[in-house]
Amino acid sequence: MQSNLAVEPADRSRAMLRERYAAVRALTATLAAPLSPEDQNLQSMPDASPAKWHQAHTTWFFETVVLRAHDPAYRVFDPAFAFLFNSYYEALGPRHARPRRGMLSRPDLRTVLAYRAHVDVAMQAFIPAAEAGALALIELGLHHEQQHQELLLTDIKHALSINPTHPAYLPPPPTLATTAPALDWIDHPGGLVEIGSGGGGFAFDNETPRHRVWLEPFRLATRPVSCGEYAEFIADGGYERAEFWLSAGWAAVQQEGWKAPLYWQDGEPGASGDWQAFTLNGLRPVDPAEPVTHLSFYEAAAYAAWTGARLPTEAEWEAVATALGTGDVVSFDPARPHPRAASGPGLRQMFGAVWQWTRSSYEPYPGFRPLPGAVGEYNGKFMVGQLVLRGSSCATPPGHARVSYRNFFPPDARWQFSGIRLARDV
Amino acid sequence: MQSNLAVEPADRSRAMLRERYAAVRALTATLAAPLSPEDQNLQSMPDASPAKWHQAHTTWFFETVVLRAHDPAYRVFDPAFAFLFNSYYEALGPRHARPRRGMLSRPDLRTVLAYRAHVDVAMQAFIPAAEAGALALIELGLHHEQQHQELLLTDIKHALSINPTHPAYLPPPPTLATTAPALDWIDHPGGLVEIGSGGGGFAFDNETPRHRVWLEPFRLATRPVSCGEYAEFIADGGYERAEFWLSAGWAAVQQEGWKAPLYWQDGEPGASGDWQAFTLNGLRPVDPAEPVTHLSFYEAAAYAAWTGARLPTEAEWEAVATALGTGDVVSFDPARPHPRAASGPGLRQMFGAVWQWTRSSYEPYPGFRPLPGAVGEYNGKFMVGQLVLRGSSCATPPGHARVSYRNFFPPDARWQFSGIRLARDV
Amino acid sequence: MQSNLAVEPADRSRAMLRERYAAVRALTATLAAPLSPEDQNLQSMPDASPAKWHQAHTTWFFETVVLRAHDPAYRVFDPAFAFLFNSYYEALGPRHARPRRGMLSRPDLRTVLAYRAHVDVAMQAFIPAAEAGALALIELGLHHEQQHQELLLTDIKHALSINPTHPAYLPPPPTLATTAPALDWIDHPGGLVEIGSGGGGFAFDNETPRHRVWLEPFRLATRPVSCGEYAEFIADGGYERAEFWLSAGWAAVQQEGWKAPLYWQDGEPGASGDWQAFTLNGLRPVDPAEPVTHLSFYEAAAYAAWTGARLPTEAEWEAVATALGTGDVVSFDPARPHPRAASGPGLRQMFGAVWQWTRSSYEPYPGFRPLPGAVGEYNGKFMVGQLVLRGSSCATPPGHARVSYRNFFPPDARWQFSGIRLARDV
Amino acid sequence: MQSNLAVEPADRSRAMLRERYAAVRALTATLAAPLSPEDQNLQSMPDASPAKWHQAHTTWFFETVVLRAHDPAYRVFDPAFAFLFNSYYEALGPRHARPRRGMLSRPDLRTVLAYRAHVDVAMQAFIPAAEAGALALIELGLHHEQQHQELLLTDIKHALSINPTHPAYLPPPPTLATTAPALDWIDHPGGLVEIGSGGGGFAFDNETPRHRVWLEPFRLATRPVSCGEYAEFIADGGYERAEFWLSAGWAAVQQEGWKAPLYWQDGEPGASGDWQAFTLNGLRPVDPAEPVTHLSFYEAAAYAAWTGARLPTEAEWEAVATALGTGDVVSFDPARPHPRAASGPGLRQMFGAVWQWTRSSYEPYPGFRPLPGAVGEYNGKFMVGQLVLRGSSCATPPGHARVSYRNFFPPDARWQFSGIRLARDV
Repeated sequence: MQSNLAVEPADRSRAMLRERYAAVRALTATLAAPLSPEDQNLQSMPDASPAKWHQAHTTWFFETVVLRAHDPAYRVFDPAFAFLFNSYYEALGPRHARPRRGMLSRPDLRTVLAYRAHVDVAMQAFIPAAEAGALALIELGLHHEQQHQELLLTDIKHALSINPTHPAYLPPPPTLATTAPALDWIDHPGGLVEIGSGGGGFAFDNETPRHRVWLEPFRLATRPVSCGEYAEFIADGGYERAEFWLSAGWAAVQQEGWKAPLYWQDGEPGASGDWQAFTLNGLRPVDPAEPVTHLSFYEAAAYAAWTGARLPTEAEWEAVATALGTGDVVSFDPARPHPRAASGPGLRQMFGAVWQWTRSSYEPYPGFRPLPGAVGEYNGKFMVGQLVLRGSSCATPPGHARVSYRNFFPPDARWQFSGIRLARDV
Repeated sequence: MQSNLAVEPADRSRAMLRERYAAVRALTATLAAPLSPEDQNLQSMPDASPAKWHQAHTTWFFETVVLRAHDPAYRVFDPAFAFLFNSYYEALGPRHARPRRGMLSRPDLRTVLAYRAHVDVAMQAFIPAAEAGALALIELGLHHEQQHQELLLTDIKHALSINPTHPAYLPPPPTLATTAPALDWIDHPGGLVEIGSGGGGFAFDNETPRHRVWLEPFRLATRPVSCGEYAEFIADGGYERAEFWLSAGWAAVQQEGWKAPLYWQDGEPGASGDWQAFTLNGLRPVDPAEPVTHLSFYEAAAYAAWTGARLPTEAEWEAVATALGTGDVVSFDPARPHPRAASGPGLRQMFGAVWQWTRSSYEPYPGFRPLPGAVGEYNGKFMVGQLVLRGSSCATPPGHARVSYRNFFPPDARWQFSGIRLARDV
Repeated sequence: MQSNLAVEPADRSRAMLRERYAAVRALTATLAAPLSPEDQNLQSMPDASPAKWHQAHTTWFFETVVLRAHDPAYRVFDPAFAFLFNSYYEALGPRHARPRRGMLSRPDLRTVLAYRAHVDVAMQAFIPAAEAGALALIELGLHHEQQHQELLLTDIKHALSINPTHPAYLPPPPTLATTAPALDWIDHPGGLVEIGSGGGGFAFDNETPRHRVWLEPFRLATRPVSCGEYAEFIADGGYERAEFWLSAGWAAVQQEGWKAPLYWQDGEPGASGDWQAFTLNGLRPVDPAEPVTHLSFYEAAAYAAWTGARLPTEAEWEAVATALGTGDVVSFDPARPHPRAASGPGLRQMFGAVWQWTRSSYEPYPGFRPLPGAVGEYNGKFMVGQLVLRGSSCATPPGHARVSYRNFFPPDARWQFSGIRLARDV
Repeated sequence: MQSNLAVEPADRSRAMLRERYAAVRALTATLAAPLSPEDQNLQSMPDASPAKWHQAHTTWFFETVVLRAHDPAYRVFDPAFAFLFNSYYEALGPRHARPRRGMLSRPDLRTVLAYRAHVDVAMQAFIPAAEAGALALIELGLHHEQQHQELLLTDIKHALSINPTHPAYLPPPPTLATTAPALDWIDHPGGLVEIGSGGGGFAFDNETPRHRVWLEPFRLATRPVSCGEYAEFIADGGYERAEFWLSAGWAAVQQEGWKAPLYWQDGEPGASGDWQAFTLNGLRPVDPAEPVTHLSFYEAAAYAAWTGARLPTEAEWEAVATALGTGDVVSFDPARPHPRAASGPGLRQMFGAVWQWTRSSYEPYPGFRPLPGAVGEYNGKFMVGQLVLRGSSCATPPGHARVSYRNFFPPDARWQFSGIRLARDV
């Protein structure tokens, strides 16, 4: 008798997925809202994409991987979009050249938003009847969209930063005076540990399989390196002394003229304490207590060498995070995507402040198998020439990251919210 | 009694200038009107500028050269614009890097339009009281704006052309079947001729001083080379046979992979008669009767060599145009900036169809003196490495060109409406 | 009474070192002997160095690191050489730009040979009295010279290869028809293994410290991939099918136009069985039985993907090599530096044929510490962006390599004798 | 009886040609003699060629254009040389890439010298029987070789200049204290003048046809600008003040970091009087009385603007040289190719000191026709993007230049012995 009232677990899960789909898609709209159509068309470097493109591409992902593949009733919005908004999937045909994404004034923003609505309607209709395989792809699509939400923020930050008038994404909130807790160390005895995703909940293929790694004893810093600490490295000639740098890093310093983290500029040249930084809320004084960010791997490694410490491996990072849990209360503020100072003692800011460069190259785990089909290109084909970052940042959407999460970027990338957590041999 | 009705000549001239100022400025708005804010922000190559930038820069010219220099009452709209919208005037301070003009999503289009209105109001108030020196600069500013009107069209054409969807600036007008009149020759006996501006009416400094040039006898073609004639050159292997090309031109053919004029694409590869061309009205079949355009100097010279003829010198071109007058009835159609076929016999399309590459390098005339002050940088400093083009094109605003007008571009430039008029030794 | 006949162990060791010093230095001369002064000055790409430079730089190493630092009696040959022949040691002052090494026609070859003789005389005089620290540096210098002996061969091979006349380093020996043994697999149970140098005999700092690594069960191929096997990959469209390639590898294929291993050219285009290859003995038909070489990491990884196998990690490679020993009888033939086919069953050609790309990025071992002083720059600062190769090649001098040896190159490097040994998960 | 003593005029001319052939070829050997095989293989930039290549290419010219085309008895030395030593003749087949000429260690110098001897023997045997057409080509080949003699010197100067040890081509002669005569002006009334070669004696095709040019009145400086005068321009901020520079020149100054003529370096930075210059006799103090050289057209034009004068057109230069004759006694010193100070009053150093940049772009003369056949590529295809230089330099072989001679280089070229002679409007 109650059975007609009961909702089947599978249906409940599908209903929840519809809600979550709506919520994730809505957050993208929220993040793009402060930007004009012109802002949303900007591409300031080949690595970055326009905000409009992010919105179209994430929609294309659902259209192509879910609807066209699994929903016979689906009607394609515009056949040209298959070419325009494919990012890098060779199996899904040719695509518009990445460095020219900013040239696409057409389709205009209104059309892209109509595209989003069209796909959203189709997805909401499709989910209740979707089979397990399709559900997994929808799940993947939502995590994919969250990755692009973070990129939307980092990419528009870069695009606005090169405007000589320093425009703000959103007006600055009131400044809070902060202090960073003392940097302390957590010891780990080493030995045989397990890392990687064991299957409880969503994970990207690159986090699998769960496997054993042997660690030597080490210690990990309780919090990320702060801006004040990093400014001391600069003041001590950090960018002029080759002895701290990897060879490729030193070459980058010379060629690019790096003298400080990306977005830092000196209010009074020479005065080391007077740094300004471009933020999504405009140009602001650097807060010494905040985690330092927008560093390349090269800078992170050089800073570590300067202190006599080193960067952790990704296995070390994960082992500590798993053993201790992380007390982080991560609050994502779409109006102020900027890392704030840690508060309180203990292991802090593993998540929600800055991505933490590890000393691990991005490689396949033992026994790694990419996903079948086109989505097999999602992660596996990038496993060379990049370094792993762990944790998450102030720009990572809530619910996206986890202990086994592997972010990855080339060693010279600086436009992400990337910072440093130190480690040491014992 | 009538004296209070009479208008003084100078005042009449100032009143006319106010009207002309308004008309020229309004045409810019007309040309930009079909473009969205995103379109207007596009910069598809370093040589081209965004439509929004053209509108701001021409306004900056009046603000800087006229109002700030001569109108004590003028209030600057935004001090940052002096940096953002200076094009290349070293004497007027540092400026935003040219290849990054497309990165300026801020100021947004609305702000630039407000800037235009602000300066227009100030100019209309200023003109009645302006002294002769200022009047000359206003005149210069209007011709400057007309040059940018043409560039606005050629630049947006390039920007839209690289969009894979071939968007149109405006929808295409009905196609008219046309035929080109037979190509005939006009003989000139040579001897001592005078060229350059002699002072009747506005001219740029590079057209002065009027001076004598000795010419050998020659003949000039009655009309520009047509698309059909150029297609024969292609079909005869023109782009594969080094013997027709200047060395630098042949290198450009190899490096750039040129196989046809810019914007041509082959509907059926191999079939020489089936060319399509991207136009401001979208992708359209090439009309064999129309003047061929979007050619580099290298292509123009190679085509001439293939025919056994040559390009005229600028003095030859001007001597014929002066001796015969030009019967061109030039009709500028802002909705269809595209060269149409010539009609009727006699000397045709010296103006209003395509700019005509000459065999003359862009050099100072004997006794040339640049204008005093910052506007001395207008022309003189570009007098090396470029070739002179004569006449005017379908995208040149009415009233802008004249017999002594010297346009100039580097030999590999193809995005202007540039074509060929042949000459021969007698 | 016998004591004056007895030689102290330390003295014996020093006497042996003098002999070994002489032998290693003499081999360099042997390798350079077939080359004219013009050949020895060639630098065909920034990564490669002239043969003359290799001879000077290895001499500079002994002069700078040993004699100037430890021998008060030493008289510098030419003070300018400190600048000219420093390779990359920041701690040892500024240096001549790497890509311009081929511009140094002066000092001429005769002077460089005199430099070698000058340093050799001083070294032979110094060794008997050298203290332990200096002895270790001499040992390092000899291994350093051996590395440059191999580079001398790979660099001159590249330089001669771009000469359209295909000149030979030495005339070809008689061709021997060969067959490769069947490719078989050796199983390893995985578990906790130890890798790295444990201190018995010379090792570079990057091979230390010896440490534990956890391995999953795997199998390793008994011999390298042969040219015939690789030709099947090509014939199956290996260079046209993105699905086998890492993203950066696929980009390299497109940009560089790779269609086969470096130095291969097709006698009859299209006919897959008719490959020719440029060798140090001139252009020769590819022997299907020989190990394929001159592959980038990208090609090695793509080939492995095509077969459904993978590349081994460096720990897997070392674990098998340690467990089984290697039965390789390596014969180094300075007149024919080219890999020959394996012979016999069992684990073959771990050494002496081709360097074997691993799936391991070049990273510091846990607890790694670079050597103190300037030689700390020898290895450590290159530990990013490169992949480890294991074993040794046909161009590696005898006595140079060992089980723990870590060679490393960027993933697109092809001019070394680099090949493939496959691995599989069990 | 006397008839067998008499020599026919044609035979006499052929006998003289044999002698001249021998003399020109011998001078090439003289110029190369001080250089080692390694020196002779250097190519320090794409524009320059190795000394060995110059010797082979000039030989290839005689072999290809004269012997293979006109001497049935000729036996080709090595068929591969047609590819290796063709410079830029498209009609004569494919050729080795220009920037890789320095990679040709093989054929070695000895082989190239044997090639020269082989062709010389054949030429000496061929000349007595050669027909008029072949004689004209031999004449062309000798002037061609003379051009390469000068390039051999300028190219090896560049190659040695980038060696940090400043090696000398030959040891320096004793320094003579010199003073430059006062700079005076020669007036020319303008009017209709004739320029170009009228047929008396050899001329390149680009000097023809002789034709009329109208000149306005002008004056020409009696001597080239001296190093001392140019140093004042530098000291007055010449390289920091945009107002003197053409736009492309100013861009070159920024990009290349030009601060003085090529090869100048400051003994005591900041002290304007203390310039050193690299010469073919090593590093030497700049003599203020000597003509300044190794300037780009941009620098020549900027210097002229700084003085308020200008550069002459090529017609102006030739008109004065023709009207006054030139009293230059040019002494070519193969051991010291370096411009010496003028001596005496009157028109000085039109020849034999420095090539003089004109304000004329390199264009075809009215009615210009290239030579028939492959040698039609000799000059005509380079007639865009370059500027004409007139006169000759200290490195021009005796007998090579003449009043109508047109040398040409791109506006940024600095490695020739190029300087400044000023002109002024009257």
